[in-house]
Amino acid sequence: MEEKSSSKTQGKAIRCKAAVCRKPGEALVIEEIMVAPPMPGEVRVRIICTSLCHSDITFWKMKDPPAIFPTIFGHEAVGVVESVGEDVDEVSEGDVVIPTFMSVCGECADCISKKSNLCSKYPFKICPWMPRYETSRFTDLKGQVLYHFIFVSSFSEYTVVDVCNVTKIDPAVPPNRACLLSCGISTGFGAAWKTAEVEKGSTVAIFGLGSIGLAVAEGARLCGAARIIGVDINPNKFEFGKKFGVTDFVNAANCGSKSVSQVINEMSGGGADYCFECVGLASLVHEAYACCRKGWGKTIVVGVDKPGSKLSLSSFEVLHSGKKLMGSLFGGLKAKTDIPILLARYMNKELQLDEFVTHELQFEDINKAFDLLIEGECLRCVIWMQK
Amino acid sequence: MEEKSSSKTQGKAIRCKAAVCRKPGEALVIEEIMVAPPMPGEVRVRIICTSLCHSDITFWKMKDPPAIFPTIFGHEAVGVVESVGEDVDEVSEGDVVIPTFMSVCGECADCISKKSNLCSKYPFKICPWMPRYETSRFTDLKGQVLYHFIFVSSFSEYTVVDVCNVTKIDPAVPPNRACLLSCGISTGFGAAWKTAEVEKGSTVAIFGLGSIGLAVAEGARLCGAARIIGVDINPNKFEFGKKFGVTDFVNAANCGSKSVSQVINEMSGGGADYCFECVGLASLVHEAYACCRKGWGKTIVVGVDKPGSKLSLSSFEVLHSGKKLMGSLFGGLKAKTDIPILLARYMNKELQLDEFVTHELQFEDINKAFDLLIEGECLRCVIWMQK
Repeated sequence: MEEKSSSKTQGKAIRCKAAVCRKPGEALVIEEIMVAPPMPGEVRVRIICTSLCHSDITFWKMKDPPAIFPTIFGHEAVGVVESVGEDVDEVSEGDVVIPTFMSVCGECADCISKKSNLCSKYPFKICPWMPRYETSRFTDLKGQVLYHFIFVSSFSEYTVVDVCNVTKIDPAVPPNRACLLSCGISTGFGAAWKTAEVEKGSTVAIFGLGSIGLAVAEGARLCGAARIIGVDINPNKFEFGKKFGVTDFVNAANCGSKSVSQVINEMSGGGADYCFECVGLASLVHEAYACCRKGWGKTIVVGVDKPGSKLSLSSFEVLHSGKKLMGSLFGGLKAKTDIPILLARYMNKELQLDEFVTHELQFEDINKAFDLLIEGECLRCVIWMQK
Repeated sequence: MEEKSSSKTQGKAIRCKAAVCRKPGEALVIEEIMVAPPMPGEVRVRIICTSLCHSDITFWKMKDPPAIFPTIFGHEAVGVVESVGEDVDEVSEGDVVIPTFMSVCGECADCISKKSNLCSKYPFKICPWMPRYETSRFTDLKGQVLYHFIFVSSFSEYTVVDVCNVTKIDPAVPPNRACLLSCGISTGFGAAWKTAEVEKGSTVAIFGLGSIGLAVAEGARLCGAARIIGVDINPNKFEFGKKFGVTDFVNAANCGSKSVSQVINEMSGGGADYCFECVGLASLVHEAYACCRKGWGKTIVVGVDKPGSKLSLSSFEVLHSGKKLMGSLFGGLKAKTDIPILLARYMNKELQLDEFVTHELQFEDINKAFDLLIEGECLRCVIWMQK
């Protein structure tokens, strides 16, 4: 890839390479595409590297709406601002930024409140367009529109992102670590830190030890949890988990006549203070709620279940148990203020990120990243755009 | 009733009058009964007055377990300590006390924690006995055991209560106000104050404007809520509600093609910050959750639904909405520390209690209190044990 200097490209369409998905489940094809200049309030970003998240795979497989093709996936990345549209003062050419699928307009009641991270001006939605114009910035060389993916589309050498969806970061952070904070690791870490507010000395149970579950463990560890119980059906996950503070392991496939919640209630003397469901199964939310400490336990839904799935709780237990149920989208984090805190903690050697990166690949091998994540041996695979 | 002096009665059974319910739904019969002396850790109390709560009626009607007959109902009361059992130092003869169905042992992890009001040493349960011995202190004159009701049984001139279930109060508080804090008013007030932690300037929606719903309004008012939306099918409740700070009324029977949650979402510009279900219907919990402000809204279950009823929530909404679901048993209050605070606020003319007492009766007319509450014109009927 020829690196474009903004003085040459500003205000013009850029021709570059992108990994386009034309049909659900089909291998991505690296094509030349055109990336239009940013509209007012938008930023064009040269992607340095991007990592692959399970949500990319979920939508890559999806045959029905809200999935739509051809599209450019990818939403965990770091890049450099190539140019900005009108009315953009927050970042300028050369700034290193992380794009995020969650917007921060900074003005709405939610962005002003400390209690919400759900921007109400540009709410998160599965949308094939740019958030404020409902148009695309991508076309293929035949002029066909290519759709955006959750406001980021980082599987492209250049992408356009709304300024509400970028966070300026310290350029000293290695890009193959910074990109992880766009989605998965932030979500897990934030779920423990911001949503659950895990307390020192507490007991935590985590259902599902994928990257997000392990990031919950990392968040809980840094919040001072005394005991972190990991639940998975793959015992190898416990070895991964130990690096992030997981102290106990429950193999859900090996509980005999007992339910996982019974096992956890017994081993914790009445339930964990905080239970996180990171798989995306209503049945596991029920188990998590069932082994949540009465009196003050919190059950946090982090995993994304199938559309239409229902959580069913006993009315009696909700009233009598003192337990709380809540969800955690993007870990309850406000990207622009909280991601820099996480990166500073990484640079200060408190927060572990290195351990999440199990694989690194070049852009032309992007389909291999899909295989690695699907096979389950990979936590995060970083894809470098340029050799 | 002859008032017994402790020096004469201590350690002996007391013969006195009680309103005994021998069969579900049948009128109570005022009988002479025997009240055994308190066992170690127990307190015998001469009831001054008692009020009637909907839970008494629910169990009075109940034909199947956990209901059990013959029993002595009543659990909202105030009285004077007649004598104490061994090992009781906290109260002594002559102290004015409020009995509560929720225990405070003061020693268990829950009682020590600020986050829980669910004593784990003597947990709340529907139980026909004294909490620590599983025996009764009541017999009729034929020697038949009479069962206790939720550790209080205040429809008797004398009752025995565990010391974990009494709170010593300022004797200057009028008894026909103090008794209200044994259950319903505390529950509603606490749900706003302790469980939801209603913030100044916030919007509150209350489903069901019975005594508990009105007590939620009173709690929300004192927490500084700017707008309190009351929901009921009886428009007269709005007039009651205005006294407790209810600013808006939604007649659930009169919303046309809209659901109550739609109406509330529209009138509040996106939902109430805190929604309280005080009726005891899962369907209303769903409505409350649906009109709870995204980003930070809390739905608090206060009403008691039928055994086995289920709450069904969209997994997607739980994850994406930032809303929290929680229950509130006894308003999240710890009786021994929080009831004195509420009474002090009453004496200081901040907290309104007078307005809840719509009727007062003598003990021999206790069945009339049932009629009044069932007819729905009564908020709280205080029953005086002695003319």
